[in-house]
Amino acid sequence: MTSYRVTDLVSGLPATVPFVGPEAQERAQGRVFDARIGANENMFGPSPAVIEAIIQTAGDAWMYGDPELHELRHAIARHHEIPVENVAIGEGIDGLLGYFSRMFIEPGDSVVTSAGAYPTFNYHVVGYGGKLETIPYHDDHENIDGLLDRAADVNAKLLYVANPDNPMGTWWGASAVDSMMSRIPEGAVLLLDEAYGEFADPDTLPAFDISNENVLRFRTFSKAYGMAGIRVGYVIGHCALIAELDKVRNHFGVGRVAQAAALAALKDQVFLTNVIEQVRSARARIVEIARENGLSSLDSAANFVAIDCGADGEFATTVLNNLLRHGIFVRMPGIAPLNRCIRITAGKSQELDAFARALPVALGEARAAR
Amino acid sequence: MTSYRVTDLVSGLPATVPFVGPEAQERAQGRVFDARIGANENMFGPSPAVIEAIIQTAGDAWMYGDPELHELRHAIARHHEIPVENVAIGEGIDGLLGYFSRMFIEPGDSVVTSAGAYPTFNYHVVGYGGKLETIPYHDDHENIDGLLDRAADVNAKLLYVANPDNPMGTWWGASAVDSMMSRIPEGAVLLLDEAYGEFADPDTLPAFDISNENVLRFRTFSKAYGMAGIRVGYVIGHCALIAELDKVRNHFGVGRVAQAAALAALKDQVFLTNVIEQVRSARARIVEIARENGLSSLDSAANFVAIDCGADGEFATTVLNNLLRHGIFVRMPGIAPLNRCIRITAGKSQELDAFARALPVALGEARAAR
Repeated sequence: MTSYRVTDLVSGLPATVPFVGPEAQERAQGRVFDARIGANENMFGPSPAVIEAIIQTAGDAWMYGDPELHELRHAIARHHEIPVENVAIGEGIDGLLGYFSRMFIEPGDSVVTSAGAYPTFNYHVVGYGGKLETIPYHDDHENIDGLLDRAADVNAKLLYVANPDNPMGTWWGASAVDSMMSRIPEGAVLLLDEAYGEFADPDTLPAFDISNENVLRFRTFSKAYGMAGIRVGYVIGHCALIAELDKVRNHFGVGRVAQAAALAALKDQVFLTNVIEQVRSARARIVEIARENGLSSLDSAANFVAIDCGADGEFATTVLNNLLRHGIFVRMPGIAPLNRCIRITAGKSQELDAFARALPVALGEARAAR
Repeated sequence: MTSYRVTDLVSGLPATVPFVGPEAQERAQGRVFDARIGANENMFGPSPAVIEAIIQTAGDAWMYGDPELHELRHAIARHHEIPVENVAIGEGIDGLLGYFSRMFIEPGDSVVTSAGAYPTFNYHVVGYGGKLETIPYHDDHENIDGLLDRAADVNAKLLYVANPDNPMGTWWGASAVDSMMSRIPEGAVLLLDEAYGEFADPDTLPAFDISNENVLRFRTFSKAYGMAGIRVGYVIGHCALIAELDKVRNHFGVGRVAQAAALAALKDQVFLTNVIEQVRSARARIVEIARENGLSSLDSAANFVAIDCGADGEFATTVLNNLLRHGIFVRMPGIAPLNRCIRITAGKSQELDAFARALPVALGEARAAR
């Protein structure tokens, strides 16, 4: 019996974490991974301009960042050609998903997502007492019609979709997404996670419709801009909904160095274009490595490729554990039948060479163990 | 009538911000302040070792930070000679206060603080539906006995005390704080904000008692370590309570660059000692400037000094607005009788010279306007 009083909700939460970091695995193994291609980090970034901005701002780190994030917010608005009132910035998409979960969810409220989709969103939903309603993937794609139907059936307050999808890398084109955004059930808000959006073909992301008060679209500097270690994400939506965020956010949460870095990243679109090209080449290389090992892979619009290990989740898990043991950090989907795959981040040649060497060994060991 | 459904709690929150940043005032005035001595930032920092760590880590910004913050957490534990299980790290004390507010507060729960104390804590409490119970300062000090009594009377879940205090800079010595920590009412947790603790004399901060499950002590890299723009704070307390935080925190919220910077800061205690000396000299200079203008000031254990403008809040507000107009960014307490004072951050000579020039002008204008 404790003498302090944590809420029943928090007290009852599981002691879980959305992801174990590769550092924890490295500490357990007593060695550093040869290839860090498991967390969909973008090792082609950040831009030299970002590094320069960080260096230039380091000496100013004694100052709080502007709590209104004026300059960055305006730059993002200009970049997307939308009014600044439709943009808010937070501590990565993770931080923003947490805020919006808090803003919408009361214990027992229903939230719809795909079975096997982003665990951190689920972590936030459960953390605020929401009831997760999941829809299976269909043909390795998020099942848009199924998600919309379920959202209507359960009177969902929130509906989460990632496009391109994580962990499968599949995607819906702009017209399908536009159609989805026009069919959101009354009273629901679609949280459209476009963390990997910049990697996709241009006809994947629809134009912004800031008049739609039932859609929030999330972008990040963690993926294409190569700044996962900096923590800046943003959200675009109806101005009334964006304004609500100001009531709960940690106003000084995005620091001065992070703001300067994100601003520099946004300004260097030439570098971004180049990164996207490199990621596409790396994706093709992963597909090729899979093929060389007799495995198929899923078409991906993100900076990773899901390789189908050709059997069930148990087999893929064995392959993954073998890879980890051989110094290759990768991850895999958590739910069948997605978990027949392992998920490989588009790394540089050095990382993919290491993966190419380790995969046949890991596969051979897994087959021998059957 | 909106078609989305923000919770009644959030919907009913005021559209307020805890602090307006100096950048917003600069934009409104169309000029940059000559002296930024209003937010208790520490312009004597950060350490060159921190700047070097930031520069060295900038190229690694594509990687997420370790979500377990293993190295930094262990370093903090070693620094304070306590087990690592008693330490947690978050996105500044602001971020941590938000998490703990969430963990304890259900709508209607009582929380006790001093009238005029840290607005950001109040922001979090109100944001989770807590009922703020305030106790006036006594002789410009937080009224420990009054706070404890009120916490017992209202069955408070949380009790907030800052030592040294902000905005007054006053403090209680270790024995008084030890006594307070031994008298926390059943069922309450004391959030002891020691953001300014490193600036105080050594006999101000009591030893850690990690067996006390009703105390959480907050420290930050934003003040003495001069890293307000980086966002790292930590909390020390009973291991069971510290473990609860893992259920709700944003596990990747403290990025790789921030972790490296904080680690470097912690390791450079020689620099810290030097900064504290400089801050003490600057404090003495502020006292002297006040005296030259016929004003008294409050003894301070923090990196700022409250100058008593010698009249009421209206007069001090006029002085403050005059200072702002003359290019000097300062702030002041929000509640009588504390608001007879303006609060001046211990700046470098250049900033304090500018303040010394502006203060007599600002005072003269304020007196002429009466």
